[in-house]
Amino acid sequence: MINPLDHPLTAALQDKIDQKTKPLGSLGRLEALALRIGLIQNTLSPTLTNPAIVIFAGDHGIAANGVSAYPQSVTAQMVANFLAGGAAISVIAKHNRLDLWIVDAGVNADLNRHPKLIEAKIGKGTRNFLDAPAMTESECAQAMQAGADIVQERHRAECNCIGFGEMGIGNTSSASLLMHCLTGIPLAQCVGRGTGLSDAQLSHKLSILNQALARHPGQRDPLAALSIFGGFEIAMMAGAYLKAAELGMLIIVDGFIAGSALLVAAKCHPEVLDYCVFSHVSDEQGHRALLDHFGAQALLDLELRLGEGSGAALAYPLIISAVAMLNEMASFAEAGVDGG
Amino acid sequence: MINPLDHPLTAALQDKIDQKTKPLGSLGRLEALALRIGLIQNTLSPTLTNPAIVIFAGDHGIAANGVSAYPQSVTAQMVANFLAGGAAISVIAKHNRLDLWIVDAGVNADLNRHPKLIEAKIGKGTRNFLDAPAMTESECAQAMQAGADIVQERHRAECNCIGFGEMGIGNTSSASLLMHCLTGIPLAQCVGRGTGLSDAQLSHKLSILNQALARHPGQRDPLAALSIFGGFEIAMMAGAYLKAAELGMLIIVDGFIAGSALLVAAKCHPEVLDYCVFSHVSDEQGHRALLDHFGAQALLDLELRLGEGSGAALAYPLIISAVAMLNEMASFAEAGVDGG
Repeated sequence: MINPLDHPLTAALQDKIDQKTKPLGSLGRLEALALRIGLIQNTLSPTLTNPAIVIFAGDHGIAANGVSAYPQSVTAQMVANFLAGGAAISVIAKHNRLDLWIVDAGVNADLNRHPKLIEAKIGKGTRNFLDAPAMTESECAQAMQAGADIVQERHRAECNCIGFGEMGIGNTSSASLLMHCLTGIPLAQCVGRGTGLSDAQLSHKLSILNQALARHPGQRDPLAALSIFGGFEIAMMAGAYLKAAELGMLIIVDGFIAGSALLVAAKCHPEVLDYCVFSHVSDEQGHRALLDHFGAQALLDLELRLGEGSGAALAYPLIISAVAMLNEMASFAEAGVDGG
Repeated sequence: MINPLDHPLTAALQDKIDQKTKPLGSLGRLEALALRIGLIQNTLSPTLTNPAIVIFAGDHGIAANGVSAYPQSVTAQMVANFLAGGAAISVIAKHNRLDLWIVDAGVNADLNRHPKLIEAKIGKGTRNFLDAPAMTESECAQAMQAGADIVQERHRAECNCIGFGEMGIGNTSSASLLMHCLTGIPLAQCVGRGTGLSDAQLSHKLSILNQALARHPGQRDPLAALSIFGGFEIAMMAGAYLKAAELGMLIIVDGFIAGSALLVAAKCHPEVLDYCVFSHVSDEQGHRALLDHFGAQALLDLELRLGEGSGAALAYPLIISAVAMLNEMASFAEAGVDGG
């Protein structure tokens, strides 16, 4: 049960922002960000506690069909790299003081235990959706519940601001199909180069995904589409978004695949979007249209297309500054500045 | 004497970036940023030491003509607010761990001493350029030298990354005139709402600035234009940019007024631009065209129009992440990830 954001504090928050020692509106989108955070926390003085990035990793049966520039083995290797501190998200999270957790949602390998690795494997990769639904409905529900449980645990540890990332060779294919099924935007506009396909490879990917659609036509229901075309990590993220919103957490939305999981969540419970801040617009084709579908404007546009929650982590300092503006800047009256 | 950036390390830097465990190019503009920083420091492993924001504050004779939404008294009041920690830049610099210095370049008030206030007053505000040049050539040279000296002092304190901000009621008028004179872009496209003018006030401002141009026609020389239309804080920034580039420092360029000072510097010594990273595109009319004139793409587009170095300070965490990517991410070989 997600509480839709009531806006009784909107006027008071806007007034507090307008009294700060700066020309009216001159902090631009940082002001809208501060307002949103105040509304989510239902206070004029929001705080950020134990902020975290949780990366969900899973493998995909469709990876067998040459839809990615990288082999499936990379998913497990990158999980090890996240944990060893060598990946982009490891480095960015460290410098931005974000607590990083990795979830084995369904990697096709036996992973070594690690204090920051959460074991939640649903299976060793999904089925190939050219042959059969990627997941059973039961596996899908189990994944969503696992995502919710992981968020609940972060919340128990007093985290009130969370971003979700993902790793899974082949998962832009799932994201593209979910976007097409749940928005109605033509598939070709939802399919992009992922980790770096050539023109010929992109054309092959589109052809494979069209075959998948023909195999499972007419999917409009978010949970049915998620079961058929999704991934364990995408389903887990969808459950994670819903629980984070239910718990009143501030959600930092990463890029294209993270957005496709949010799309599933929002088609189930649109109020989840009230709790979201969109970190960046990705270079992956389809993401801008997906943001438009949400009516969202992203904070950053750095031509990123990495996933891992990297965009969410890069945007986090802007969130810190927005909150600090609300709490720490002086008002015209307090500072004795004319013209407020 | 500014060394133009030689690019002998370009290939080695790009190769180092390309070996990192991420799809080729997937960190987008963060990769170009890392490359630029490596070139400036002439190393594959750049570092950021004692990063600082220096705000130059000065008053303007033209403020008497109703070109700003705020009275001149605000310049001195905001200096006090910077020092007391209540301004936007105070708060953002603190959270992003930037050392903040304020310079009295020519505020029309006697300011109290403070450990973070640098006394470099050229005069109690410039002359009104409707009547006479804002500065004498000697005052202008003195201001540029003061800016250079202040940067030299930061460099002595082992600062290798610096952003310049400004405060001065009326200074968008100076910036607009400098932009027009030194780029040839029509004045109306260089003039904006500053701290928040109405349509009628904007029209009045444009009319006043057209009168100023008629009073001092045909200014194309950067230092002559700076003397006539500039401000003490703008001249000091121009000198500061040149010295920072000469010392090989990484320069974080803020918004419109900071950009106008850089324009003066770049018309004197174009190589200064090699050392610059452009933090944001401001909401102030004219700034986007000024960035285009530099051939620059800004990191952030947050509709800021505050000045104070606030955009530079907000972009600083991206610079940290770019450097950390170069130094701390694992290569494919180091991490044992396939496909590198």
